[in-house]
Amino acid sequence: MKGNVIVGQSGGPTAAINSSLAGVYRTAKDRGAGKVYGMMHGIQGLLQERYIDLSDFITTELDAELLKRTPAAFLGSCRYKLPGIHEDKAVYEKIFSILDKLDIEAFIYIGGNDSMDTIKKLSDYAIVTGHPTHFIGCPKTIDNDLSLTDHTPGFGSAAKYIGTSVKEIIRDSFCLEYEKGLVSIVEIMGRNAGWLTGAAALARGEDCSGPDLIYLPELPFDIGKFDLKVRELLSMKSSVVVAVSEGIRLADGRYVCELGQSIDFVDAFGHKQLSGTASYLASYIAGEIGCKTRAIELSSLQRAASHCASRVDILEAYQVGGAAVKAADEGDSGKMVILNRLSDDPYQSGTEVKDVHKIANDEKLVPREWVNEDGNYVTDAFVNYVRPLIQGDVSPVMVDGIPRHLFRPVQ
Amino acid sequence: MKGNVIVGQSGGPTAAINSSLAGVYRTAKDRGAGKVYGMMHGIQGLLQERYIDLSDFITTELDAELLKRTPAAFLGSCRYKLPGIHEDKAVYEKIFSILDKLDIEAFIYIGGNDSMDTIKKLSDYAIVTGHPTHFIGCPKTIDNDLSLTDHTPGFGSAAKYIGTSVKEIIRDSFCLEYEKGLVSIVEIMGRNAGWLTGAAALARGEDCSGPDLIYLPELPFDIGKFDLKVRELLSMKSSVVVAVSEGIRLADGRYVCELGQSIDFVDAFGHKQLSGTASYLASYIAGEIGCKTRAIELSSLQRAASHCASRVDILEAYQVGGAAVKAADEGDSGKMVILNRLSDDPYQSGTEVKDVHKIANDEKLVPREWVNEDGNYVTDAFVNYVRPLIQGDVSPVMVDGIPRHLFRPVQ
Repeated sequence: MKGNVIVGQSGGPTAAINSSLAGVYRTAKDRGAGKVYGMMHGIQGLLQERYIDLSDFITTELDAELLKRTPAAFLGSCRYKLPGIHEDKAVYEKIFSILDKLDIEAFIYIGGNDSMDTIKKLSDYAIVTGHPTHFIGCPKTIDNDLSLTDHTPGFGSAAKYIGTSVKEIIRDSFCLEYEKGLVSIVEIMGRNAGWLTGAAALARGEDCSGPDLIYLPELPFDIGKFDLKVRELLSMKSSVVVAVSEGIRLADGRYVCELGQSIDFVDAFGHKQLSGTASYLASYIAGEIGCKTRAIELSSLQRAASHCASRVDILEAYQVGGAAVKAADEGDSGKMVILNRLSDDPYQSGTEVKDVHKIANDEKLVPREWVNEDGNYVTDAFVNYVRPLIQGDVSPVMVDGIPRHLFRPVQ
Repeated sequence: MKGNVIVGQSGGPTAAINSSLAGVYRTAKDRGAGKVYGMMHGIQGLLQERYIDLSDFITTELDAELLKRTPAAFLGSCRYKLPGIHEDKAVYEKIFSILDKLDIEAFIYIGGNDSMDTIKKLSDYAIVTGHPTHFIGCPKTIDNDLSLTDHTPGFGSAAKYIGTSVKEIIRDSFCLEYEKGLVSIVEIMGRNAGWLTGAAALARGEDCSGPDLIYLPELPFDIGKFDLKVRELLSMKSSVVVAVSEGIRLADGRYVCELGQSIDFVDAFGHKQLSGTASYLASYIAGEIGCKTRAIELSSLQRAASHCASRVDILEAYQVGGAAVKAADEGDSGKMVILNRLSDDPYQSGTEVKDVHKIANDEKLVPREWVNEDGNYVTDAFVNYVRPLIQGDVSPVMVDGIPRHLFRPVQ
């Protein structure tokens, strides 16, 4: 490489996104890049000319190792959707003038669907204007909902945390006996895609029967059938554990979490705030059946739990970052790096690049055949798909009993 | 030992209670005990003659190691308070007839305050009736609220999980920028004692500024002052993280979680549902300040997270189990094993036995001088007390990417 590289992080944080950042930095340096800049808070920060020189923060190999073990977005993130080129050309002119000023040869953006839309628009603009910067997307989302790639970095670590935590919740739930039994409802992220919720099935093994029911957002949720199923289970066992997606909806389209709310909460982006699905179902079941219930939201813990990261995931995230720089250096633009599954057992994967136009704004859902007929559990095929992605650990660097992260002063 | 041993687990589960069980089993076997029985679901199960022979489950050294790494109560637990001897003599006659039938020399009960009350009453009854069984209590509670002992097994692992998770939440919270900032409120267990909530301060270190505010249940919570403090912090930083005990109360004695009844969820039957402390404060702050807020309950995860256990805690729990058997074998009864802190740096502890009459039904709270003057953070002395208890890790035995536990079929 002759010029400089700039890298940004966008969308919801994960336990693996900083490993991709480390991969971008290392590969860019190895390939002779001058400076490697980091956008503060993605494209939104770049528009305000907020960026750092990553060499100021990654000064040793230990720093790079700590970065791989640091959850959330080291550079800060954003949820900024670029306007269309015809809608606001000034935004593009501003971005490209900054890229020119910094002599940027490669622009790498680590993120999910919205971020791939950004790569698409910027690379389109570069083509139209004959601008030489290369734009490459690096997939990242715990939701695993990007198309074309076998899976997304960040998903494996979240899945490992969910499987581990649900198993611990199952153990905990069997301890105390209640007259009419205990129903524990665990709420898991994933507004439209059930990949994370399905990962609760990883708790099942020789030593654990796993959760009793799993409800994904892909299928309509029938509260009456759910009630009957819970009663049936309670007639056989004292503790029932249910995994539900935050985004499950009734057949009429209403979110379950909306049923209990007197006021609709809508966030700054017009998305309805989804929380309280478990809480609603727990109070519904307590009212109908009279048993003890418990609502447990895995909340942001499931996307930030670096202390329980998957080694496969962290290494793949690193590789994907490196592959993005390599692609840009070799002349690609308007592409996203994807992960290809070469073999299941033993698991092997490799990277490729695909046209970002085929990826942006598309959402990959769990296929119907990976959910059982009753729609209340995932199949073995689903588990066989996820299992390789949670293998191995990344030992946290423990300092005084707590995992050490790479420090960046807030700017 | 000449006779048999019976051991039970009682009260809320922890990540360390099974390590005490392993310590009881190993020491009893080493000292020549015949059988080591486990009460199913504590004294409540014993009254129904539900018990197992632990040798059927711990057949190898690997089993014992797995048991130390298995969260929650392997034998099942209960929340049963024995009636007074004068209130219901029949209950005592029933228990002692079962002990006679099983030829029990030592009765070990692993639990918190209520369990020590059980030990007290049973040992009193044995003295009055001249019965030879020895009754020894083994401390266990994540709440760390037992008196006389420096700390309780189970607390260190929960504290380590809380410090780790709060640190990950802090990283996560700094990622996305919101116009008026983000306030994340983390709700931590401990209805009356703030030991666990104070452990959130462990997140603070060279690489992390820690939570911004910590509110323990020992001090009255002033919602107006809290509001002002949050506004002051939001004027200086974009993300504010607050740790609150589930049990914080206003000066008039009302729990903060009760206040939410009027504004939160309404269930399917129009009943108002009691929401959590964090959830109430998050919606209060959102309403008053207009910033983005998030409520995160660490819920039962904090007491079941064996995958993040403290080595010091797991080893001490094991030692305490062994010391209980040793005490019984040496003729003690009506005693609880306690942990003595011999030295802070390097940390060293030892076990002793104390009269259970001095412990039962007493609750150890965080001393006022370990909270700052404003009542919104713990002091360095608090952190120095907790820090040694979270040191070291107990590597989970990972099978197919998920921690393995010792299996017991539900009976």
